[in-house]
Amino acid sequence: MRVSAAVHFDFNTKVFNKELTKFADSEEYIVRGGRDKFPLLKEAFKGISKIGVVGWGSQAPAQAQNLRDSIAEAGLDIKVAIGLRPESPSWAEAEACNFSKAEGTLGEVFDVVSSCDLVVLLISDGAQAKLYPRVLAAMKPGATLGLSHGFLLGVMRNDGVDFRKDINVVLVAPKGMGPSVRRLYEQGKSVNGAGINCSFAVHQDATGNAADIAIGWAIAVGAPFAFPTTLESEYKSDIYGERCVLLGAVHGIVEALFRRYTRQGMSDEEAFKHSVECITGQVSRIISAKGMLAVYESFTGEDKKTFEKAYSQTFKPAMDICMEIYEDVASGNEIRSVVQATTRFDRFPMGKIDQTYMWKVGQRVRAQRDESKIPLNPFTAGVYVAIMMATVEVLREKGHPFSEICNESIIEAVDSLNPYMHARGVAFMVDNCSYTARLGSRKWAPRFDYIVEQQAFVAIDAGADVDQEVMAEFLAHPVHRALATCSDMRPSVDISVGGENSSVGVGAGAARTEFRSAKA
Amino acid sequence: MRVSAAVHFDFNTKVFNKELTKFADSEEYIVRGGRDKFPLLKEAFKGISKIGVVGWGSQAPAQAQNLRDSIAEAGLDIKVAIGLRPESPSWAEAEACNFSKAEGTLGEVFDVVSSCDLVVLLISDGAQAKLYPRVLAAMKPGATLGLSHGFLLGVMRNDGVDFRKDINVVLVAPKGMGPSVRRLYEQGKSVNGAGINCSFAVHQDATGNAADIAIGWAIAVGAPFAFPTTLESEYKSDIYGERCVLLGAVHGIVEALFRRYTRQGMSDEEAFKHSVECITGQVSRIISAKGMLAVYESFTGEDKKTFEKAYSQTFKPAMDICMEIYEDVASGNEIRSVVQATTRFDRFPMGKIDQTYMWKVGQRVRAQRDESKIPLNPFTAGVYVAIMMATVEVLREKGHPFSEICNESIIEAVDSLNPYMHARGVAFMVDNCSYTARLGSRKWAPRFDYIVEQQAFVAIDAGADVDQEVMAEFLAHPVHRALATCSDMRPSVDISVGGENSSVGVGAGAARTEFRSAKA
Repeated sequence: MRVSAAVHFDFNTKVFNKELTKFADSEEYIVRGGRDKFPLLKEAFKGISKIGVVGWGSQAPAQAQNLRDSIAEAGLDIKVAIGLRPESPSWAEAEACNFSKAEGTLGEVFDVVSSCDLVVLLISDGAQAKLYPRVLAAMKPGATLGLSHGFLLGVMRNDGVDFRKDINVVLVAPKGMGPSVRRLYEQGKSVNGAGINCSFAVHQDATGNAADIAIGWAIAVGAPFAFPTTLESEYKSDIYGERCVLLGAVHGIVEALFRRYTRQGMSDEEAFKHSVECITGQVSRIISAKGMLAVYESFTGEDKKTFEKAYSQTFKPAMDICMEIYEDVASGNEIRSVVQATTRFDRFPMGKIDQTYMWKVGQRVRAQRDESKIPLNPFTAGVYVAIMMATVEVLREKGHPFSEICNESIIEAVDSLNPYMHARGVAFMVDNCSYTARLGSRKWAPRFDYIVEQQAFVAIDAGADVDQEVMAEFLAHPVHRALATCSDMRPSVDISVGGENSSVGVGAGAARTEFRSAKA
Repeated sequence: MRVSAAVHFDFNTKVFNKELTKFADSEEYIVRGGRDKFPLLKEAFKGISKIGVVGWGSQAPAQAQNLRDSIAEAGLDIKVAIGLRPESPSWAEAEACNFSKAEGTLGEVFDVVSSCDLVVLLISDGAQAKLYPRVLAAMKPGATLGLSHGFLLGVMRNDGVDFRKDINVVLVAPKGMGPSVRRLYEQGKSVNGAGINCSFAVHQDATGNAADIAIGWAIAVGAPFAFPTTLESEYKSDIYGERCVLLGAVHGIVEALFRRYTRQGMSDEEAFKHSVECITGQVSRIISAKGMLAVYESFTGEDKKTFEKAYSQTFKPAMDICMEIYEDVASGNEIRSVVQATTRFDRFPMGKIDQTYMWKVGQRVRAQRDESKIPLNPFTAGVYVAIMMATVEVLREKGHPFSEICNESIIEAVDSLNPYMHARGVAFMVDNCSYTARLGSRKWAPRFDYIVEQQAFVAIDAGADVDQEVMAEFLAHPVHRALATCSDMRPSVDISVGGENSSVGVGAGAARTEFRSAKA
């Protein structure tokens, strides 16, 4: 074990209740959210008369609507406006969500930026890298720049520049993609506790109440609880997490597992069920409800041994790649690569990845799905839990707090992304994420694929036995207790997501639309 | 076409004959080598009484022995000594090649560095990154630091430091791995013109004759011709090239092709022959002898159309990844990643990649190989030539001269690496290259695999027709004429390489040993 001392992030709130909470062996501050805290928004948003949400990607429609609904619920006189490029194709979509130029809630980016007291910048990472000098220049002194991702700090560090000093810079990062943020907020109106946890950070406090603005924003978008971080800790864990178990790793290992199972003689359909369906359905639901140990404990006899072999031979190769990803993110490499990639999009638009043979099989399997017949394959479960634990362990070694670890690598997977993957396929999900996430997944999924085949499967097929030390570390890992604490604070609510035949996508703007339940 | 103006590198020689040579539409300087130039070494190496070769990896045994043999042939009184770490396991190997402590031709690294007039630094890239401050400090004023890779310059740039000013810094980079450098030098004693081309560069000329030292070194290791470059141009093209068609791309596409062919119903053995064997055998030999167009022209009718489809649908996705690689190398990302990776080796040693199912099939296929029955599959040929052309085209767009392009992306592939891959397998070859190359191949092979399956194969299977524009650009590409010029200057000599049952490897130190011919 090589664990850096975890950072305990503190913050200064005059409005909300800061709770010191035990996550496994460490104590961390959190703030509980929920609809009963909406009355506090008046004090938290003091001095703010207009909030501008810039962009209309995955997060913007969700956050803008949640903010507007919560502010209305709190009876406040704060406008929420959308800022778009004049030529943006999203004007009509924003109008369909009742943002309008006539009412001053829909306008050109820089008009909105210069007229708002809180500017929530939700344009793509690549666009932020290009536009940040103009956005910063346009802001009112004393206004608050709100980010949902620390990416911009990474870009500015690579560029060697800093934020202007007369504004607040805060972050609220929902630990789920936009559609989940909206969907669970809506479900939360009737299902107590539904919602997506958020991390928050105060990078610059020019007005003395930046923390309360940030926490208010987190609660207004529906966070059951919010936990402090920094822009740096957030962008590292976020960019890292989506390259690991959230998107990249899960895509890579299902490709490897599908190949393995068909080679071993399973039909295409069976192989798909035993790899993808097993993870996005069964395994994911067990982890969401009862944690990772419960997956292991659901097996007995030979199946348990199979899980142990798969887990213990996969864990170390997965750690190898996870560590490489973390260090590539921390060094600025990954951000530099993303920014470079965006300059190539005109010539090389990112292709869809979900049209290959395996994902065509997936379409057929989902069309005939019987949830009750999805297998819980112990080999698949072992491989998946191993990549999840590797994702966790690297964050822990690098000193991230458990509130962040649990959310970035477990809760976001099983409660936000996997349900969408279950409804539409892993590759489809990847195709509909942010550019940064898609680029990362395209880059790292194949690495996980190759390393599990080249190292884990080769070792297992050569007769490698269970590595008892690795299993013992798994069983005793403090993350299980930390995750239980998170669950206590946030009743597990199954998100309902539209399936293949749903007329709505899961990408940009889709959050505002009603999804049909896949389980109905 | 977006071609930057190619840089025309000039240099100042008092000893050798600088020839302005037409490569397609541009003119570049070169120097012809060959055994008949050995008498010039006396003048070129004036003032040098001892050459130290530091390390014993892939290049060191080859270059040290070639230098020693050439100097003996020229009748010069210059010692060639090997420098090793005291605890290096390579002492015995070096002694077996007649380097000895007693005779002052084998010693500890810094003793050798401080006693030599030309220090050829051939330790691994990672070790260079760690040791360069001590190596530079130990050198005699006015001595020459010789590199075979510009990697160190990339590292020093990332570190923000420069070379000390009182030494020469030159580069000689053989365009082939060590074993080929030695093997062809030995064949060159009887086969006129055999040898590996070298690029050379003068980064610092403290003594006024640095270029002649570099060219002398290139000729002494057996270069049929040498062409000028810079440390920067060399490391960019070299690190890039091995990630593309030389290692990474060829590995990735054969994995994708093998999968495709088995899925289409071929037996494992047939699929291996139609993918790997076809490339490392048939296609490679045609390109070596007659160039890329000859591969295309060897097909007629439906086969020609198949080649065209495979080529034209693969080229653009391959360009996408090649461009990403080039820009990651140019930005310093790739070097930073390699240096970071070497710090993780203790905990995560690099695993072998050649134990997977497909490479086991390969072992069986090679054991029963009948060269005359290796198929020339038009689909495989189209995909392979497309990745080779993409490798070429990115270098061209980035302004590299044709002498460098042809050597880094075509000649090194078909005359140095592919014959070894043919003898022992692609994955085995990757496992036996330098750390920088192995890391790069592990990183990028899966990217090529995924992109050809996700984009090229999907398009072809969906009925995409031949892209005539892409084909026209292929047919008219100036690289074909430039390659012909290279061939004129270097008679094609088939390298003879040991096969599976050979008792010698192809990695560290193996160059010194006689290889059995795979064709015998």
